Amino acid sequence: MQQVLILGSGKSAIYLIEYLLQWTLENHWKIKIADFNTKHISNLKIENAHLTLVDVDLSNEENRTKLIEESYIVVSMLPAFMHPLIAEQCILNNVHLATASYESDFLKKHAEEIKEKSLFFINECGLDPGIDHMSAMKVIHHLQNIGAKITGFHSYCGGLIAKESIDGPWAYKFSWNPRNVILAGQGTARFLENGKLKFVPYQRVFAQPKSILMSDDTSYDGYPNRDSLEYKNIYGLKEVDTLIRGTLRHAGFCKSWNFLVQLGITDDTFQFPISEDLTYRSFIEAFLPEVSGDLKSDFKKLLGNDYSDVDFEKLEWTGILSEEKVKVKNGTPAQIVQALLEDKWRLQEDDKDLIVMQHLFEYQLNNENYKLTSSLSLTGESQIKTAMAKTVGLPLAIAVKLFLEGKLIEKGLILPITPNIYAPILDELEHKHGIQFIEEAI
Amino acid sequence: MQQVLILGSGKSAIYLIEYLLQWTLENHWKIKIADFNTKHISNLKIENAHLTLVDVDLSNEENRTKLIEESYIVVSMLPAFMHPLIAEQCILNNVHLATASYESDFLKKHAEEIKEKSLFFINECGLDPGIDHMSAMKVIHHLQNIGAKITGFHSYCGGLIAKESIDGPWAYKFSWNPRNVILAGQGTARFLENGKLKFVPYQRVFAQPKSILMSDDTSYDGYPNRDSLEYKNIYGLKEVDTLIRGTLRHAGFCKSWNFLVQLGITDDTFQFPISEDLTYRSFIEAFLPEVSGDLKSDFKKLLGNDYSDVDFEKLEWTGILSEEKVKVKNGTPAQIVQALLEDKWRLQEDDKDLIVMQHLFEYQLNNENYKLTSSLSLTGESQIKTAMAKTVGLPLAIAVKLFLEGKLIEKGLILPITPNIYAPILDELEHKHGIQFIEEAI
Repeated sequence: MQQVLILGSGKSAIYLIEYLLQWTLENHWKIKIADFNTKHISNLKIENAHLTLVDVDLSNEENRTKLIEESYIVVSMLPAFMHPLIAEQCILNNVHLATASYESDFLKKHAEEIKEKSLFFINECGLDPGIDHMSAMKVIHHLQNIGAKITGFHSYCGGLIAKESIDGPWAYKFSWNPRNVILAGQGTARFLENGKLKFVPYQRVFAQPKSILMSDDTSYDGYPNRDSLEYKNIYGLKEVDTLIRGTLRHAGFCKSWNFLVQLGITDDTFQFPISEDLTYRSFIEAFLPEVSGDLKSDFKKLLGNDYSDVDFEKLEWTGILSEEKVKVKNGTPAQIVQALLEDKWRLQEDDKDLIVMQHLFEYQLNNENYKLTSSLSLTGESQIKTAMAKTVGLPLAIAVKLFLEGKLIEKGLILPITPNIYAPILDELEHKHGIQFIEEAI
Repeated sequence: MQQVLILGSGKSAIYLIEYLLQWTLENHWKIKIADFNTKHISNLKIENAHLTLVDVDLSNEENRTKLIEESYIVVSMLPAFMHPLIAEQCILNNVHLATASYESDFLKKHAEEIKEKSLFFINECGLDPGIDHMSAMKVIHHLQNIGAKITGFHSYCGGLIAKESIDGPWAYKFSWNPRNVILAGQGTARFLENGKLKFVPYQRVFAQPKSILMSDDTSYDGYPNRDSLEYKNIYGLKEVDTLIRGTLRHAGFCKSWNFLVQLGITDDTFQFPISEDLTYRSFIEAFLPEVSGDLKSDFKKLLGNDYSDVDFEKLEWTGILSEEKVKVKNGTPAQIVQALLEDKWRLQEDDKDLIVMQHLFEYQLNNENYKLTSSLSLTGESQIKTAMAKTVGLPLAIAVKLFLEGKLIEKGLILPITPNIYAPILDELEHKHGIQFIEEAI
């Protein structure tokens, strides 16, 4: 009886675990969940005799190796930086692997070996990346099949907070890895617009958000992701003039976030020298060229006329202008900001998160120009049962199930961009889990 | 008869090689110079029977190992990124090492092992780092010895072009590693000013240069180096309120360079997609949010009122706004800019470079406040005999000589910040080579 190993048991894994528990129970597979502490899911054990919970430090290589080598497939919900280490052990021990993380350089380098060993390594099979690929490719393949020429592809996704749960000026709370939110936009954003390459350095990424109108008639801020250009090849969009993938925030977020960027407090490359009595205010003042005592006017001087009282109040609301002591004991500026915002932007018990995704396709068919959108909007149930955990966990869980059922026979390094993979996953997401894209000609 | 191995024979090594050749000749040591191609120094062989020239690819590990293991000391003028690899081989084979590069993290990690093996590893023994440390520590130790309390330390150094050789609007030519000039300022600059920590992110480093008046009555632009804060410990400046180390450029350089930074074209983190017909102008336009056809007004729109016609003309002068084809076949934006500027900012045969360095000390003695500067200004002789090659090569060469003569007995990972090292080096630089600091009370 072969074994499925799930690495990570955090909140984000809840939908995935429940789904795979049910499948393994029905199909008499063994399942093992390993994490630093699995006590919070110990109730699951009672319902499933084939389930083993292992409390283990997964940063220890020996621990990882032992777990991986006795498994048939590893499903990892650990942070992305762990995945090259896990992939290495999987290759060595001929174990299959499924994650929702981006394909790492390590994996790309070992693509041939993975294929030669007939291993099934699926990545980017969550929400973004994941459902974005699948839902886009479904429309792209359809348009190509009817002979259309796709000239434009604009795709935006945001992990947000539902309108009814907004209770602060930023209209934002963390529903996923906070670190990624703090560091978002670093590096240069690259995309294609009206036939021209476009490059936007970090200090301008949040300064010029696009207003993206979604099917719910709400306009969101959209800022470009790091590299949209590579999707020309990945999605087979050889003829597009415009190709942009971006991230959504509630309107007004980007302009205010940009001031943190301009200050420089999202830098993650050096340790900020933290003393016993360092306050958030003196942390901020260290990044201001001039400190007059009137913080508002110092900000205006640095940030220009764009800087409004509303932006200042948003900063004030975070507590980062206060005389409170900085909580982290050592860390980068980005880590100091993250620790503060994790308190302020925490999902409360009754909060509901919101996933919005929209692809806009421009295409030509029979010498006519058309536009089509494909949109998803999904509200979470609670602080635990988030739309984020659902949309990240279920596609990955379904892909693993399909593989274990022998329905995915492709081998090697795989993305969910071919119909044999995305069609059954999207179908099940829509019909069994209410994760449904709406297509509209506009 | 033991052997001195010099790695690198480029223009920057000329003074170092001549100095060590003479010493090894007088003292009957063997000397070996290894580089990809040593033909240009083959005339030296005739004058020195103990000299061996080796044409070898030093990026090959086996080649390096063979050369290092048969040496007594390695003196490396190779690019800094090579030094951890070289240091590793030196430790393994019990060979001493001398470089003008910053102490790498690799070296710091192996400091204990280097000391235990009684190896002499000296680094940061060129100009900056090197002469800056030595000349600063000489004054710091003197002031501390007379009971002064040092309250401020401002130190600036620039590798520039002599006034008589200025023939372009930037008043700049490369006298050292061009890559370092293109990437200068990346990361966040950290220093101490009037008792306050100060942090300046990359997008503001060149926007707010200080005007630094040197002893030649010329005002230069000074921008802060990445990390001045660590010098509080290294230099033993426990009581300073102000501690800043920076880099000098001729006045006006920083403001114009800042526009390249704001455009985003100094990014070195991604490959720019280069096509056959990519021109510099379209490269630049890819970084502009709006392209109207009137480049000057597009620039003004992006860069604001600060952007003058003079700045535009400087950009124009580089050729980066022209319809000429981009020369590099693949590379990052920074590499594209570097290749262009290497043509434009090349030292011509009769050009003379200029080294300027100034430390400003603020101190208290018997309840009085004092200021003291210690300044160096040195003009090169020619395109080959540059002040840069002289001030980088000679301190390193003298340190190696002192070590071979048994006059430096300290072992381990060493910086030239103690009197037994800096005193004889500064003395010889001043009295035999005309590299002299002038101290002035101001």
